[in-house]
Amino acid sequence: MRAIDLIRRKRDGGELTPDEIGFLITAYTHGEVPDYQISAWLMAVLWRGMTRAEIASLTDAMLHSGQVLDFSDLPGKKVDKHSTGGVGDKTSLVLAPVVAAGGLRVPMISGRGLGHTGGTLDKLESIPGFSVNLSLADFRRVLGACGCALIGQTAEIAPADKKLYALRDVTATVESPALICSSIMSKKLAEGIDALVLDVKMGSGAFMKREEDAANLADLLVETGTRMGNRVVALITDMDQPLGRTAGNALEIVEVLEVLSGSGPADLRELSLELAGWMFFLGGRVASSADGKSLAAEEIASGRAKEKFREIIRLQGGDPAVVDDPGRLPRAQHTFDVPSPDQGYVAATECEQLGTACVVLGGGRAKKEDSIDPAVGLTFHKKVGDQVRRGEPLCTLHYNAVERLDEARRLVETAYRFAPEPPAPRPLVRRVLGA
Amino acid sequence: MRAIDLIRRKRDGGELTPDEIGFLITAYTHGEVPDYQISAWLMAVLWRGMTRAEIASLTDAMLHSGQVLDFSDLPGKKVDKHSTGGVGDKTSLVLAPVVAAGGLRVPMISGRGLGHTGGTLDKLESIPGFSVNLSLADFRRVLGACGCALIGQTAEIAPADKKLYALRDVTATVESPALICSSIMSKKLAEGIDALVLDVKMGSGAFMKREEDAANLADLLVETGTRMGNRVVALITDMDQPLGRTAGNALEIVEVLEVLSGSGPADLRELSLELAGWMFFLGGRVASSADGKSLAAEEIASGRAKEKFREIIRLQGGDPAVVDDPGRLPRAQHTFDVPSPDQGYVAATECEQLGTACVVLGGGRAKKEDSIDPAVGLTFHKKVGDQVRRGEPLCTLHYNAVERLDEARRLVETAYRFAPEPPAPRPLVRRVLGA
Repeated sequence: MRAIDLIRRKRDGGELTPDEIGFLITAYTHGEVPDYQISAWLMAVLWRGMTRAEIASLTDAMLHSGQVLDFSDLPGKKVDKHSTGGVGDKTSLVLAPVVAAGGLRVPMISGRGLGHTGGTLDKLESIPGFSVNLSLADFRRVLGACGCALIGQTAEIAPADKKLYALRDVTATVESPALICSSIMSKKLAEGIDALVLDVKMGSGAFMKREEDAANLADLLVETGTRMGNRVVALITDMDQPLGRTAGNALEIVEVLEVLSGSGPADLRELSLELAGWMFFLGGRVASSADGKSLAAEEIASGRAKEKFREIIRLQGGDPAVVDDPGRLPRAQHTFDVPSPDQGYVAATECEQLGTACVVLGGGRAKKEDSIDPAVGLTFHKKVGDQVRRGEPLCTLHYNAVERLDEARRLVETAYRFAPEPPAPRPLVRRVLGA
Repeated sequence: MRAIDLIRRKRDGGELTPDEIGFLITAYTHGEVPDYQISAWLMAVLWRGMTRAEIASLTDAMLHSGQVLDFSDLPGKKVDKHSTGGVGDKTSLVLAPVVAAGGLRVPMISGRGLGHTGGTLDKLESIPGFSVNLSLADFRRVLGACGCALIGQTAEIAPADKKLYALRDVTATVESPALICSSIMSKKLAEGIDALVLDVKMGSGAFMKREEDAANLADLLVETGTRMGNRVVALITDMDQPLGRTAGNALEIVEVLEVLSGSGPADLRELSLELAGWMFFLGGRVASSADGKSLAAEEIASGRAKEKFREIIRLQGGDPAVVDDPGRLPRAQHTFDVPSPDQGYVAATECEQLGTACVVLGGGRAKKEDSIDPAVGLTFHKKVGDQVRRGEPLCTLHYNAVERLDEARRLVETAYRFAPEPPAPRPLVRRVLGA
């Protein structure tokens, strides 16, 4: 088998067999096929697409390029959730303790912020002492002890994805739905889970701006996971404005604690309950996602979810006292209220711009090597549908680096659209696939 | 400027500026942009194509990646011919002496055989002692002394093309018309010529099987050369059967000597006169290509072209006695006549198969590292339109390696198509572009 023949076939719109895809990925991971052949193949894949069978083969090859975890010795179904990324999207931090409190296991391997979006690992690291760099042995230990554990990608898991992703990043081949799907699914299925709930974001703050693209990706993800023997559901959810009322690492932890205490912003609470409901259902804990949603609400109301969160923090080396005293989290030195340049109703937001404002303040990374300031971020006072007077604060910027304020402020000021009438309400969950 | 932005733009179907293309090519030649980014870009170019302006920019950048020769101190216009490659295509060896004898200068930098096609350099090297590896100083000296010189690619000429071609060869990105055009034109224009005649082959023995593809490439070549200030004409010529009656290096030299002596196969003589006619015309030597054709015939009839060939051989270290005694050329130990499996008229040939038979016998290279046997090859007794009886020899195989005979024989036996009636005659030159 020769790489060039497989590049040529894909270039001409043909289909590769599972053996051929397996050969490419294995040889690439072992350094036997060079970067320059794979990058040409990736561009051909982006051009021609892949069949469902090819995507499953690619996912399988990437999955088996490294260690596939097996938690079958631990009682209870293992479930996880994956989001395609958004602004203010902190549901993972609510879901892990809620679902673990409800009797399932959540072995969660998460990522860092990417572009204008935040990352679960960065948020967790704003808790003093919290370590996301557990060995796989410690990951298993924490999962066994409290029902969930939250770590970052390790070298043992899907090394082919790591190598391919780095190459895609510098060759303009990130945007292929087939490659996005196999990248997500190979890492998630390596967690040794039985079921997966996917939160596919769409809108101005998501990577998929159009519902059609989000639905296409959701469909690929569900089919690929199902072909590989998992129970998978995808929710297409709104990302035309930030989720909740904060973006920024420590600020989002505060909001998670609010939701786990039974309060917090309605949209964040609602989406968390919805996703938890599906996790409980797919994990066989309840008879329907609606029952799962009730169970999730109960875990919060009883205080068990909050206690579970305290337990996770403690087991992963963090300061559990933040749960009752969020003042122990890092806090920015300065704040600035961005006044509304107009009046009326908030009709929409350029949500990606709001995410970028958070990155500009230091809450995310412009380059991989950048370090993060856990304290900075945005508090949103006005959400879509809210009435606003000219000069009234739209948003508070929390910042440390004074020289970054102006750029962030400009981004926020121009991110809001106003209308004389309130817009028609939009559903948070637009579609559920694979149910 | 960042390579990834330029890859992304081309991927999305956009156009790059001359500066952007110049940046990519210069940085790649200097090793500042890695292979894996260029190969992704090449695949995007193959997918999206390039505008005429982009092709000219690319050609210009590749041309100026190395030394551009300048023979303006030598009197007379400098002209050359380039063929896209075929089977039995030996016109360069007729043209160089004919056109030099007629008063123009021909600084010819040629290539080796590629795939099933032969190469001018390989044919020349079958002349004992002949060296194609002249320094650029010796190239100039020979060109000054006798009006033509024939050498191979040097490291100083268009190094970007050398690097890009090697990468295209292993990433399935050879077939892009834009990349083929810029590769050809950057090397040819580096010869410091005033005018160029292109012989774009089409048919079963050419790289372009369809007239449409050949016409498209011819059009690109002519426009690119013209944009860059050269006089350029392209002839689309038939390659549905071998040109002349031989394929194989020393065998083709014999045939060239026949044409230079006023005899030789009609098709080879006719195409050589046609191409020489255009070279004389573009070089300003005559008022029309028809006049140029007459001049070429005169250079042959007078014996001046043959004398010029003797002079070139002598100046480039070869044995000039082969001109009068072709028996001094290498000769294969064995011959085998392939009998016709059928009767009627030869209707067509699978010409690429005949070229491959020559490679199998050792007359070409299956891999770059292979060495060539100058003596082996094929003599074609039956051309398209000829009547043939069953068992009558279609072709003689000249061979040294006995174990290779069977495969070559099978290729030849299945390469001929027969019909009860002779096919309609087909023109050798199908179209002229840029005239």
